[in-house]
Amino acid sequence: MNKRMIFYILGKMMGVEGIVLLIPAFVSLLYQEKSGFSFLIVSAVLILIYFVLGRKEPKSKRIYSKEGFAIVGLAWLLWSAFGALPFVISGSIPHYIDAFFETVSGFTTTGSTILTEIEILPKGIAFWRSFTHWIGGMGVLVFVMMITSLDDDNAMPLMRAEVPGPEADKLVPKARRTAKILYGMYFALTAVETVFLMAGGMSFFDALLHAFSTAGTGGFSNKNASVGFFDSAYIDGVITVFMILFGINFNLYFLFLLKEWKTALKNEELWVYLGIIGASMAAITGNILHIYGNIFRAFRYASFQVASVITTTGFCTADYDRWPELSKMILMSLMFVGACASSTGGGIKVSRLIILWKSVRQEVRKILHPNAVTVIRVNGRKIGQDTLRNVNIYLACYVLILVVSTLLVSIDNFDFATSFSGVLTTLSNVGPGISQVGPVMNFHKFSVLSKLVFCFDMLAGRLEIFPYLLLFSPDLWRRRF
Amino acid sequence: MNKRMIFYILGKMMGVEGIVLLIPAFVSLLYQEKSGFSFLIVSAVLILIYFVLGRKEPKSKRIYSKEGFAIVGLAWLLWSAFGALPFVISGSIPHYIDAFFETVSGFTTTGSTILTEIEILPKGIAFWRSFTHWIGGMGVLVFVMMITSLDDDNAMPLMRAEVPGPEADKLVPKARRTAKILYGMYFALTAVETVFLMAGGMSFFDALLHAFSTAGTGGFSNKNASVGFFDSAYIDGVITVFMILFGINFNLYFLFLLKEWKTALKNEELWVYLGIIGASMAAITGNILHIYGNIFRAFRYASFQVASVITTTGFCTADYDRWPELSKMILMSLMFVGACASSTGGGIKVSRLIILWKSVRQEVRKILHPNAVTVIRVNGRKIGQDTLRNVNIYLACYVLILVVSTLLVSIDNFDFATSFSGVLTTLSNVGPGISQVGPVMNFHKFSVLSKLVFCFDMLAGRLEIFPYLLLFSPDLWRRRF
Repeated sequence: MNKRMIFYILGKMMGVEGIVLLIPAFVSLLYQEKSGFSFLIVSAVLILIYFVLGRKEPKSKRIYSKEGFAIVGLAWLLWSAFGALPFVISGSIPHYIDAFFETVSGFTTTGSTILTEIEILPKGIAFWRSFTHWIGGMGVLVFVMMITSLDDDNAMPLMRAEVPGPEADKLVPKARRTAKILYGMYFALTAVETVFLMAGGMSFFDALLHAFSTAGTGGFSNKNASVGFFDSAYIDGVITVFMILFGINFNLYFLFLLKEWKTALKNEELWVYLGIIGASMAAITGNILHIYGNIFRAFRYASFQVASVITTTGFCTADYDRWPELSKMILMSLMFVGACASSTGGGIKVSRLIILWKSVRQEVRKILHPNAVTVIRVNGRKIGQDTLRNVNIYLACYVLILVVSTLLVSIDNFDFATSFSGVLTTLSNVGPGISQVGPVMNFHKFSVLSKLVFCFDMLAGRLEIFPYLLLFSPDLWRRRF
Repeated sequence: MNKRMIFYILGKMMGVEGIVLLIPAFVSLLYQEKSGFSFLIVSAVLILIYFVLGRKEPKSKRIYSKEGFAIVGLAWLLWSAFGALPFVISGSIPHYIDAFFETVSGFTTTGSTILTEIEILPKGIAFWRSFTHWIGGMGVLVFVMMITSLDDDNAMPLMRAEVPGPEADKLVPKARRTAKILYGMYFALTAVETVFLMAGGMSFFDALLHAFSTAGTGGFSNKNASVGFFDSAYIDGVITVFMILFGINFNLYFLFLLKEWKTALKNEELWVYLGIIGASMAAITGNILHIYGNIFRAFRYASFQVASVITTTGFCTADYDRWPELSKMILMSLMFVGACASSTGGGIKVSRLIILWKSVRQEVRKILHPNAVTVIRVNGRKIGQDTLRNVNIYLACYVLILVVSTLLVSIDNFDFATSFSGVLTTLSNVGPGISQVGPVMNFHKFSVLSKLVFCFDMLAGRLEIFPYLLLFSPDLWRRRF
């Protein structure tokens, strides 16, 4: 375990967060808000930490998977811990645990909130809240990689630990260039969405914040009624489309850029993802038709909520907690499913479900033909035994965390639907659940223990569990280095 | 696919059910009930089927895993389909679908009921209802194997497909002798429990029926208030102990018979099982102390309900749906866990969870030491890759069925806790759930679709999913034979 290198990279990362905090400070300055100072104070502390830890390069610079997982696990925890401070210092969120919850929810692109009144937040604070989604969506380490100098051998373990999905790809041979290309496409899509939203009558500020949230598949809105505030079919439509776009594997956009349409369109995950979306939209539209009277309104609300939940964004335009149970259960199932691998969305990921489904079929075939050699292919590529085992164990961990977290949260004595959906929505980085954590509710009411459990679930969900399993493993700390 | 052999064995099985039905007919005769004729009619039909299909041995007698799974899947379906007829013919359960639900619930040892009034049932009918638990507990095929002549090569595929747990053991080299030993121990334990219950003041009839239900970890009682009817700490205690005993791997009893105490007590699954039971009893006792006033009453109700749920029996002495959420969630988690492999209990099984847990730890260790070769051992035995993969895929199937079934049941528009716990409790063969399917409720209110979904879940849960996946696989039927 290269402990010095871990400190060195974490030091660098703190410095980057210090610089990032200057952006909301600048927003505060524009609007002449006193709360801007809170960003400057935290920024100064972080840059100081950088000078202590992140300046002197260690002699031995090589890191491997285990360091990668440890750095990623700790980095997200530290970014959240410091990122929460401006909320407390500015007085916007008085209790640190609430601010920490809100920041973890931001960076992990969950979008669950403890705030009951959002519209009174100062602009700078509201900007920072949504900006955390944008950074967290693509990954704080991918962000750091883009702007600092890490050689390629060291960047890959970090990337592998942070990018969602069963297998991490480099788009181009150099990890740093990959990071730049990813952020480039991400930036471009965000900019296009902002323009589209402004064309619908949103102010630049509102449009930007909602584009940040869509891009990161986060779900924070600066309006109490979420996107429902704007009550515009055009805006609902734009956000629906962009949510779906941000739930697609980013590697496919790269293939589009290279004009490799055919390879991109042969992607199995894409079609299953779009298929699930289409089927869910149709089923819910039918199921809620009697509430909205006409098919267009029903489809508008159904499609927005479906796109919001499967991409794990969590914006709302309707209180789906009042919909029939079938619609609620479809949405709950979509929370489980999540978006595509290597997108900004959470959940189990469509590609993992395809692999699971194919391995079930393979198992049945093995009973029928015990001696047949069978291979599982996804997107035309053979899935190795290691990936297969990892996907299966991922599901086991997911279920284990779901059960244990629900047990812990149920100490607060909320009804089963609240405890269970609260854990499910945080673990899958969606945002709202049903019942007491439904679309018009919030997470303020929970005890400190439950809030910490939710924070763990959000981080474990975003980083796909293993970094945190590793941090809790005594094996990691027992080793000498 | 040896189709003739499938028909031949199924024919034999129908004949055996025809003979088994003479037992409740005899009970009806004892009590001079007209409903006894319903058993005789169905018995006659079944024996006729036996003479058509089960008499002439096919030339090619060899069967393999696939035939084993197909026979087991179909046999349970047919035993339930015919076993339901006496309820309808006697008029005790007017609708066939309800009678089918009740019989599937009986054979699969689930114990969920559609009856609102149990105490008015004729004695013969009540006997048959509980007797299905007793036969289903050890397995209808193991039962058939014991009393008919199947050579060993043919018996093993059936046994493997029916006995719960990740790996099926033969106790002795001959499968038929294994079946006899199993039923012998099963019979003895049932008899002992009956005597203990009679010592507590139960009538022979009540004691026998409750012993049948305990032995099969079923849960049907002939009292509306379940075991709570007797309101006796002694009876609660006896049933608690016997439920826990019937949740233990039966191979351990065989080891005890052989006086191999050491090997038996080294069994990892046993200690984890007892550990989970102890911890759950302690946690719930503490959590419900304020309801019952003193620790003895709280412990009495906590321990009974914990034993009832983890062994997937489903007897009740208290309406746990009114307990605090934590206690309910602990019980819900226990439904998931289930009892030991090769016991009469359902659920995922403790040994599978041990394997899953160890494979998670192995995965973490692989990140730390990518080149280390690691082996998973349970009960001192190495777990092969095939078992490991099968356990993982079992969990995936379990979760998949849980999600899809809940979706289908939610069409009935009951609250989430009802739909979800209804599916969980049937899939794990427990019996009661929470909310509208809580301990004092029943399954009468559901639509025909939901009842069929529950029947599928009960059968899939009891036979550990694969036989039914196989029956639904087009591959099985596409083959020529």
